[in-house]
Amino acid sequence: VHRVPSESELIEAFVRASGAAPRPPLGPGDDASVLPAQGPSCVTVDALLEGVHFRRSTFSLPDVGAKALAVNLSDLAAMGARPRWCLVALGIPRGFGLTEAKSLGRGLGSLARGNGVAVLGGNVTRAPGLSLTVTVGGDAPPAGPLLRSGARAGDEVWVSGTLGDARLGLACLERPRDAAARRLGAHPGLARAAVRRQQRPTARVSLGRALTPIATACIDLSDGLAQDASHLARASGVRLRITLEHLPLSRALRLAIAGADRAAQFAAAGGEDYELLFTARPSAARRVRSAGRRTATPVTAIGRVVRGHGVLLFDSIGRAVSGLEGFDHLA
Amino acid sequence: VHRVPSESELIEAFVRASGAAPRPPLGPGDDASVLPAQGPSCVTVDALLEGVHFRRSTFSLPDVGAKALAVNLSDLAAMGARPRWCLVALGIPRGFGLTEAKSLGRGLGSLARGNGVAVLGGNVTRAPGLSLTVTVGGDAPPAGPLLRSGARAGDEVWVSGTLGDARLGLACLERPRDAAARRLGAHPGLARAAVRRQQRPTARVSLGRALTPIATACIDLSDGLAQDASHLARASGVRLRITLEHLPLSRALRLAIAGADRAAQFAAAGGEDYELLFTARPSAARRVRSAGRRTATPVTAIGRVVRGHGVLLFDSIGRAVSGLEGFDHLA
Repeated sequence: VHRVPSESELIEAFVRASGAAPRPPLGPGDDASVLPAQGPSCVTVDALLEGVHFRRSTFSLPDVGAKALAVNLSDLAAMGARPRWCLVALGIPRGFGLTEAKSLGRGLGSLARGNGVAVLGGNVTRAPGLSLTVTVGGDAPPAGPLLRSGARAGDEVWVSGTLGDARLGLACLERPRDAAARRLGAHPGLARAAVRRQQRPTARVSLGRALTPIATACIDLSDGLAQDASHLARASGVRLRITLEHLPLSRALRLAIAGADRAAQFAAAGGEDYELLFTARPSAARRVRSAGRRTATPVTAIGRVVRGHGVLLFDSIGRAVSGLEGFDHLA
Repeated sequence: VHRVPSESELIEAFVRASGAAPRPPLGPGDDASVLPAQGPSCVTVDALLEGVHFRRSTFSLPDVGAKALAVNLSDLAAMGARPRWCLVALGIPRGFGLTEAKSLGRGLGSLARGNGVAVLGGNVTRAPGLSLTVTVGGDAPPAGPLLRSGARAGDEVWVSGTLGDARLGLACLERPRDAAARRLGAHPGLARAAVRRQQRPTARVSLGRALTPIATACIDLSDGLAQDASHLARASGVRLRITLEHLPLSRALRLAIAGADRAAQFAAAGGEDYELLFTARPSAARRVRSAGRRTATPVTAIGRVVRGHGVLLFDSIGRAVSGLEGFDHLA
């Protein structure tokens, strides 16, 4: 006989499997979790839903757990904050038991432990599909949080890592007959790496913290460079001029998409990179590169902040590219 | 042409309509919200899902918004904490636009403002049905949080308000042909009040804070007295002896359910009351009553803490009643 586990059994199994249960006096098991006194802090929430953000056929449960935390860590990274704790609200479909709760917990826990994040507990409710809504809190940086609104004309525009790989990975998973996925078929190692960018994004927490005394503005790239750059431009009241040629592209992306301009445009419209887009005074360029080296994170200058509004993307012969749309989670 | 509003437009409309947007430096609009330095704090998360916790045909959007916050405020009330802020993750079905987001925000905001809670912002994602996952944080009480684990043999068991009304209200909404709902049909004012207990529960925030130096243990009643009392008994390593005759019942419940014992058993198994169940030394009884008066909250002694484990409920002729099940959100 399989007894249906209770809500508290499921959440306890999840927290224990994460290996990131908090030490007393923090912790689950009461009506709320207790946090010690803290300085200024940052909090954020984001949800991952089956059928909207992932499918069970292409994401393992540990992947789902890890990504649900990663997308939130990325938001704190963009503020330069140091993540400290998370709370998890699980929506679970019928048949989802202790084994599944533990798999989810292990995936989330691997990333939580690596980032010093305590899994305080949470809540379980029945739902039509699997969902994880994760709230993350952490210490605001001593120099004050990095905002979207600090970019000034004359600043350089920078981005971390490489762009477009998560979009390419999604194509490999969902549309393997598309030209891009088919071209990559001859390079299974590169295809796997792109798929991992989609399933297991890296939040740039260390880089974000290192940038707090250096960068003038910052945002994380969840909806694609083109769209997120326009959020930063609007918040700062400036225009961003970005040279597509300068976008950092992986070898996988350059092999998958023929033509440098087309590859860069694919990357600029690709969602879920979870890289950081930030601005800094030109005089800070050496400190930016040093922050990248210290945190083992590639950083690339891709453009300039000028007066005006919006984002202008230029191709390799200097033409402005329009009609690039980001990834809209609601579309 | 109806343009689909963006995620940020929806969450901004929600926050603005709440009338509880935070003053700077707190606030939405960046990658995360910033909170000022604070002492020890309590955080909790809970979700309200269409088709699981409510139906759109019986709950208005303001009801849904208010209840999603209330169930979380109730968790903080049980810790004696002072709620300060909330973050909201919305799952929205197709066709859910700015008008609907504002209605939700108004409902949540009415309760947020009344409790001094800032609505920091949140997140919107497409979902098959409407859902609100609310994270609430607040100041832990100076005397330390009220826990489930502090009850000792000899303590008295108390409960706030009246029990069973939310269950009765659900019966009126969902099963109007049931005997209980039909009997109440002759008293439309009382039926409406029971329905309001289901749609708009009251979180006992002031009482919880007033009890922090008085009560030895506390839990909020979300799954029904019988079940939640057993959580408190287990956490404290004691047995709770509860006299059904002493349960505080509304006039509506006494009219709807024939027989005092049956009415009390209905109440003891009724979920979603969001009252506080707590224990205190017998010598503290006057202070408990005074806390109830000061916060305009009825409090009733309903039993005793003894050695042992579990919960024993006694009917009017002193027989132990068994087989009472609480309300299981996962069942």
